Amino acid sequence: MKLSQLGEFGLIKNARDIFKSLNENIVVGIGDDCAAIKLRKDFLLIATTDALIEGIHFKLKYISPYQLGVKSININLSDIAAMGGIPLYALLSIAVPPSFFVKFMDEFLRGVKQGAQKYKVSVIGGNISSSKSEFSINITLLGEIEKKYMVLRKGAKAGDKIFVTGCLGDSAAGLEILKSGQWSVVSGRWKKKLIDRHLMPTPRLEEGRFLATRRLATSMIDISDGLASDIRRICEESKVGANIFTKNIPISKELKYFPSPQLRTPNSELRTSLNFALYGGEDYELLFTVKPEKVGKLKSLWEDMKIPITMIGEITKRGVNLVNTDGKAIPLTKEGYNHFKG
Amino acid sequence: MKLSQLGEFGLIKNARDIFKSLNENIVVGIGDDCAAIKLRKDFLLIATTDALIEGIHFKLKYISPYQLGVKSININLSDIAAMGGIPLYALLSIAVPPSFFVKFMDEFLRGVKQGAQKYKVSVIGGNISSSKSEFSINITLLGEIEKKYMVLRKGAKAGDKIFVTGCLGDSAAGLEILKSGQWSVVSGRWKKKLIDRHLMPTPRLEEGRFLATRRLATSMIDISDGLASDIRRICEESKVGANIFTKNIPISKELKYFPSPQLRTPNSELRTSLNFALYGGEDYELLFTVKPEKVGKLKSLWEDMKIPITMIGEITKRGVNLVNTDGKAIPLTKEGYNHFKG
Repeated sequence: MKLSQLGEFGLIKNARDIFKSLNENIVVGIGDDCAAIKLRKDFLLIATTDALIEGIHFKLKYISPYQLGVKSININLSDIAAMGGIPLYALLSIAVPPSFFVKFMDEFLRGVKQGAQKYKVSVIGGNISSSKSEFSINITLLGEIEKKYMVLRKGAKAGDKIFVTGCLGDSAAGLEILKSGQWSVVSGRWKKKLIDRHLMPTPRLEEGRFLATRRLATSMIDISDGLASDIRRICEESKVGANIFTKNIPISKELKYFPSPQLRTPNSELRTSLNFALYGGEDYELLFTVKPEKVGKLKSLWEDMKIPITMIGEITKRGVNLVNTDGKAIPLTKEGYNHFKG
Repeated sequence: MKLSQLGEFGLIKNARDIFKSLNENIVVGIGDDCAAIKLRKDFLLIATTDALIEGIHFKLKYISPYQLGVKSININLSDIAAMGGIPLYALLSIAVPPSFFVKFMDEFLRGVKQGAQKYKVSVIGGNISSSKSEFSINITLLGEIEKKYMVLRKGAKAGDKIFVTGCLGDSAAGLEILKSGQWSVVSGRWKKKLIDRHLMPTPRLEEGRFLATRRLATSMIDISDGLASDIRRICEESKVGANIFTKNIPISKELKYFPSPQLRTPNSELRTSLNFALYGGEDYELLFTVKPEKVGKLKSLWEDMKIPITMIGEITKRGVNLVNTDGKAIPLTKEGYNHFKG
């Protein structure tokens, strides 16, 4: 059955059934003019919104509706993680062509629900509209944070050490494999790992919260547009510079397999693991700065965490540079993904 | 200059400058991973999200970017009004083709700002993305309300009187005039009035708040899809029926001029003022129910309000009917605008 046969009211009813929620703080959930929620006293409300647009952020030939649902909630959760916050509620707004199948939409909504439930987030409202040709998703995520724990982009000082969680570049490499059309070949688990990192990135909520509540990070951001671009955001907001040490950038063993001679991709410029890490984007790892005197404490406290962290550079007074293995610093001018520049 | 020349970072900077805000409760505004705000204790947070999609909700040949900006904030404010709430903060998410002009975007953002400022709303965050062909706008509006004052869609009881603010049908008639291509003819102020009602609807915030804080309404909704559709929502949520009296439905003097013999519109079925009022949608007037014993109090308290109210029917046990001038009740089955049905 197509959405045009089910109709708007049927579609809203389906969504309402899927996201039925019993949280005692939700005074009004899906189905009225607004949702109404009770928040804890002495916490700040945090809010973030992000979109996924068909043809720009995803192509339906590469991603299943379920994966898209999970991804759309996870990229928003990543913004909450980058503040050190606790995610609570989501508002989901979608625009979809009437020719889409009801089953597609159900799978998508189940993905959103699965992603949300994993982090105890309730979908409390939203909006479903038809579109002419593009499927687009907009999620607003609400959460809470204690003011004293909040970690902003500003706050980095010269001398601070720069860290990242996990590995960088996997997601962009996964996308290249998808684009190459060679991803259906069962040629190795490394391809699947890279693809999964692109299709279903994990928000580093536990890690962000850990850093915030132990007051270990002086600034933090999630890497959505690539390290080169996002370190620049930290530097601009903090009015500082940075040296990134090439040899320290964490590259997964899967990404080290890449570029494979079997792969033919149009984007040859990007086909080194370093370039994927610097400019690829969509890793949704946390990039944060730590006072030098706290690095020891960070490392010992971090021992029980599942995701490793790596020191990749240090904050300077000005200029954003890449320091090569021979110690030569070159300006890191190239930006990550820019929506409006060709 | 086109957006593709300005680039994403320039565009975000422009938006940040436009929406610069000094509200003491905004701890973090535009420009970090999340916005962070302080809320008043003992209030519920209310949240709503709504979208405007090019080609579905608007055509750029009929509406200026400034008007579109105002409208996109106002339709969300209308949802806050329909709960009796106080609007506070907006998150603005837009997707726009890179070929659009920077001037277009500036005008649009100025419209959003103007609409927001009028009701003391601060834009605290958002997201700008490119799209392939469609310009789409998604706004999430946050506000607050005292739990004891909140008016939901459920709450209507058999015997309650049904009221609306203002007049119905103007917006849809305005759209028909725009579609007819005859709106540039300076043939009378009535056309302009109807068109303005379509392009820049007014959210009934003061009216909604008034009804809520005086505890005059047992249920409330804003009319976005047309009276026929939205009275049905009240009835479904409240598990009741309704009789709507045709002769009571408030029609503006401007709409009474319509249909004009000068106008040729393809949608002849809709071309009576009653049909516009029932099925037209986008009036953003408030539809609410009042206990019979409170009708007198409502009328006397309402005397100083700018927008009139009209009693258009009463809540029954079941069935949604239209009662004609001869007293004959016919089922009001036809729905207002449905996004997914042809």
